[in-house]
Amino acid sequence: MKRVQALVHLTEVGKGEAVMRNVEHLLEEFGNEVTAEVVANGDGVKALLITGPHGEQVRALAEVGVRFAICAHSTRAQGFTREDFPRVVAVVPSGVGEIVRRENEGFAYIRP
Amino acid sequence: MKRVQALVHLTEVGKGEAVMRNVEHLLEEFGNEVTAEVVANGDGVKALLITGPHGEQVRALAEVGVRFAICAHSTRAQGFTREDFPRVVAVVPSGVGEIVRRENEGFAYIRP
Amino acid sequence: MKRVQALVHLTEVGKGEAVMRNVEHLLEEFGNEVTAEVVANGDGVKALLITGPHGEQVRALAEVGVRFAICAHSTRAQGFTREDFPRVVAVVPSGVGEIVRRENEGFAYIRP
Repeated sequence: MKRVQALVHLTEVGKGEAVMRNVEHLLEEFGNEVTAEVVANGDGVKALLITGPHGEQVRALAEVGVRFAICAHSTRAQGFTREDFPRVVAVVPSGVGEIVRRENEGFAYIRP
Repeated sequence: MKRVQALVHLTEVGKGEAVMRNVEHLLEEFGNEVTAEVVANGDGVKALLITGPHGEQVRALAEVGVRFAICAHSTRAQGFTREDFPRVVAVVPSGVGEIVRRENEGFAYIRP
Repeated sequence: MKRVQALVHLTEVGKGEAVMRNVEHLLEEFGNEVTAEVVANGDGVKALLITGPHGEQVRALAEVGVRFAICAHSTRAQGFTREDFPRVVAVVPSGVGEIVRRENEGFAYIRP
């Protein structure tokens, strides 16, 4: 099977749970064949805060290879710093730039 | 013209009407050249219930070739069974898996 | 670098600000290498009205090459006419048709 690449776009903190479920279903269905990345921007970055409801889950999913990226613009605009997020979360210059790059690499886009 | 493939992602019951309109516009614009598929997950599966506001429309659109798929996880989680949906609706292991597969096949993704 | 093509889908008037920010971040990150297009349908067309909050910004972004398209169905259904929008905004037969065409041309899809 061709390698599966999926990008899940996290745009609102309230979508955090749906996004995590999406990622888990992708892992369950494709196992080692999938590369999954969550890109959060706008209000969505809050769902990945260390102190947020998914802090632990982010770390656990990153350990099995899931990538997490937050938009630097959105993070700054809301007064957060790099230290507010688990170290496994990458800070990218812009969420949209990351999304465009990944889609160009063949990632399928999913917006819960 | 190259065959057109479009996947419309139905994520909330309240988006049911917009999704149906999207499908109708695709049929109107591309006619026989389009393969359209609606993938519902989360709360969105409710929009496809037999007893829901679009039960009849789902059957009519399926007759002209539109595909409908619901996420097994979401269906189960909300206590629905296969029988609650028109028989033309396919149950897929996961909505996100279906989306990723279709995008890999060249389907354009639309999220109303 | 390969030319970057990005389509931002504007579905709700309340998403106007996020969409404009997305476009600005794309320009900031990719400069002359990006072709960006905003496609508005449903309630989203209101965000592009001349008298709306982004009328001026639409004109300014169009001057640097950003494309704007509104769905004819949505525009009509809400009682608007071509004259209610800046002249730089293109009216397309359907928003979904435009999206499918652009994705087929290689545009990455972003739905804020």
